[in-house]
Amino acid sequence: MSQIPASAQAFRAIDVIRKKRDGSELSECEIGSLVNAYTRGDIPDYQVSAWLMAVVLRGMTRAETAALTDAMLHSGEVIDLSSLPAKKVDKHSTGGVGDKTSLVLAPLAAAAGVAVPMISGRGLGHTGGTLDKLEAIPGFNVNLSVAEFRRVLETCGCAMIGQTAEIAPADRKLYALRDVTGTVESPYLICASIMSKKLAEGIDALVLDVKTGSGAFMKNERDAAFLAELMVETGERMGKQTVALITDMDQPLGCMIGNALEVIEVVDVLRGEGPEDLRELCLELAGWMLHLGGVSDTVADGKKQSATLIASGKVLDRFRQMVELQGGDPRTIDDPKKLPQAQHTMTVSSPKSGYVASLQCEQVGTACVILGGGRERKEDSVDPAVGIVLHKKVGDAVSAGEPLATIQYNAEARAIRSRQLVKESYQITDSPAHEPRPLIHRVIGRVTGNSGGKN
Amino acid sequence: MSQIPASAQAFRAIDVIRKKRDGSELSECEIGSLVNAYTRGDIPDYQVSAWLMAVVLRGMTRAETAALTDAMLHSGEVIDLSSLPAKKVDKHSTGGVGDKTSLVLAPLAAAAGVAVPMISGRGLGHTGGTLDKLEAIPGFNVNLSVAEFRRVLETCGCAMIGQTAEIAPADRKLYALRDVTGTVESPYLICASIMSKKLAEGIDALVLDVKTGSGAFMKNERDAAFLAELMVETGERMGKQTVALITDMDQPLGCMIGNALEVIEVVDVLRGEGPEDLRELCLELAGWMLHLGGVSDTVADGKKQSATLIASGKVLDRFRQMVELQGGDPRTIDDPKKLPQAQHTMTVSSPKSGYVASLQCEQVGTACVILGGGRERKEDSVDPAVGIVLHKKVGDAVSAGEPLATIQYNAEARAIRSRQLVKESYQITDSPAHEPRPLIHRVIGRVTGNSGGKN
Repeated sequence: MSQIPASAQAFRAIDVIRKKRDGSELSECEIGSLVNAYTRGDIPDYQVSAWLMAVVLRGMTRAETAALTDAMLHSGEVIDLSSLPAKKVDKHSTGGVGDKTSLVLAPLAAAAGVAVPMISGRGLGHTGGTLDKLEAIPGFNVNLSVAEFRRVLETCGCAMIGQTAEIAPADRKLYALRDVTGTVESPYLICASIMSKKLAEGIDALVLDVKTGSGAFMKNERDAAFLAELMVETGERMGKQTVALITDMDQPLGCMIGNALEVIEVVDVLRGEGPEDLRELCLELAGWMLHLGGVSDTVADGKKQSATLIASGKVLDRFRQMVELQGGDPRTIDDPKKLPQAQHTMTVSSPKSGYVASLQCEQVGTACVILGGGRERKEDSVDPAVGIVLHKKVGDAVSAGEPLATIQYNAEARAIRSRQLVKESYQITDSPAHEPRPLIHRVIGRVTGNSGGKN
Repeated sequence: MSQIPASAQAFRAIDVIRKKRDGSELSECEIGSLVNAYTRGDIPDYQVSAWLMAVVLRGMTRAETAALTDAMLHSGEVIDLSSLPAKKVDKHSTGGVGDKTSLVLAPLAAAAGVAVPMISGRGLGHTGGTLDKLEAIPGFNVNLSVAEFRRVLETCGCAMIGQTAEIAPADRKLYALRDVTGTVESPYLICASIMSKKLAEGIDALVLDVKTGSGAFMKNERDAAFLAELMVETGERMGKQTVALITDMDQPLGCMIGNALEVIEVVDVLRGEGPEDLRELCLELAGWMLHLGGVSDTVADGKKQSATLIASGKVLDRFRQMVELQGGDPRTIDDPKKLPQAQHTMTVSSPKSGYVASLQCEQVGTACVILGGGRERKEDSVDPAVGIVLHKKVGDAVSAGEPLATIQYNAEARAIRSRQLVKESYQITDSPAHEPRPLIHRVIGRVTGNSGGKN
């Protein structure tokens, strides 16, 4: 527990901790000094964790949140994509169950002429992760260097990788500390973590998909909207067009949960098929990406263009091209049997006739983790083959004994626990329940969707 | 940043951090597990500092405060003094400037037949520390083993030492962490820190001197009273008679500030002399110690007995005996010139005629630290000889050019800075200011001072 080393000079971490503890606003300089000193290893974990807890309990102003985002963003490399003529637009989701929209959106926006430099994460807890889904494709390499990332992006208009050591190292270090000190749950810290990584991608605009409902981190819409507003304002303060859609995660998105299964469902959507909710959300998000990317006048136009592109088969081609460029086996796209397949299946049957009133979303996600399809801890490895196929979703009629879902598994003991959880997550009522929740709850942002956004 | 080791089993620090973060009450078991695991080194500093910050900002219930005190108390040895027939009573002060009452009170209560097993601390920041004052006496050893401590106590009825490695190790570890993480300033943590050490002394009763004013840690009386109530309730919950006096620290206590100088002033009081405020506070605190120690029926009786004992010379004899038993040179008691003496003196003169309206107490303490008489950091060594003698205190009349104080110093550059600070700390007004603040603001406790306390 040594004092601050001399190298940190006038900056004393203890002063910044005390100031935040007492509820005062920190200056850009104080936040920057703290983040830089911590990233360099000049101040110890125990001081930063005390500061993080003070932030969780005292909150941050918008200026502080932007300063923290900026300090974390500039703790590492900020990719410069200004040489690419297309506008660079990314989409980020706060995470949910069955959310595979990124795999649809990257090739879709790229096919429309928008560049999509996407840096994604892995699944943790009940939520899935884009990287895990991509890695279900044999050979797919998410660990490209920045130079390789840029080459793929230049060639096919989109590229999807994991966070590199060069991108926002402060975020990696801070997140690891937050994870073990009860300081994850702060909208300010979540905002800075997400936005610092996204802004390091060299994007011009960002579409945020903030999930709300039983399968989201933000269970209630008020919290989701607060985080969305915070991220939109932070993005705008940093000169990037930013819009956030609050979307429903009260039941899983689409019908497939599990890494290889979700790739199959993505390909279904790219063929113009797939479940209605997933297709609709992809088109809505794509509409915004195209609009912010300057290739459609309105979001509605963007949606229309997107549907046309999908129907033409160009988006599937683009996806196949990206898979190949990143080392993945392109044959898997056309022949899902070449994707990892679970050895066994087990059916979850409805205990009675009626209607699906609700589908506890986090439980379904956890049921997939139990199968081995997700992670309880960061160190866990993931089985790409296992997962859950939902045959019934909220509002559907069901007869007693009819299959609600199918468990695809490799280990029976896990499957039995998983099946129990899936069964319990279905609430069946005698009469049709209220209308299902809308897919898009709200749009938050200063950019309007019905005219050309500001440039 | 590894996870909790397996040895901690069901207990997970992260759960306790989250629970406190979210404002819930922790159980005795959760607090005990956290303190024990930390003391053993099973959980890292960065988790405990996050928890400490959550405690600072969320507070603790009385039950939690008692549980924390109890866990810290039992992290080490609890001295068993039940073989001593006398009642064991200690006094603790929250710290101030010129507060040398402990050196008077230990031999005074002992001379009255109360045993005083006193474990004290060192000065830090603007406040002095009992151990530093004792060590101004050449040869005085504050680092006795528990066995030696007991022997001195048995022989002369009082003993004064520093915290040993065996006493409340959890407090030592937690305090070091609090010191560098901005988590010192919590009444709950302060209470647990003080009370765990005091209760480890094997006492029956405790008199707390909670300071308030410009030279105290608790600048306003409301904060002082809150801490006092917390400590009294914690003491009572743990079966010890506890009373707290809120006393004034808006100007230094007595006229001497500096380690050897304060020993001189202590001896003055033990000779029936010395400044009125110091004598009065010593008698008041002694009255309570004698009353709780069962040797006087009322506090007033205890004060009277104390005054008689001082006048008889028995208290000075007792002090001399303790000094000798702890290795100190007893001749210093009768001949102050044998105490360390500063080489030079410098006078602080009044810039104008008038009355001392206030004397900024923390500044005077800091002026002594600048001379080398105190510590800015724990590692600093202390010069016992230097200090400040105040010739004028609040309410006194003063003529232009008349000495306000004398600086006793060994380094001129320090003396010049110190003199400036002392000068600035005096506010001189043309007409006499309002009455000085009372010395004793309030008494907090369930024990009444005018009858035999409960036994």
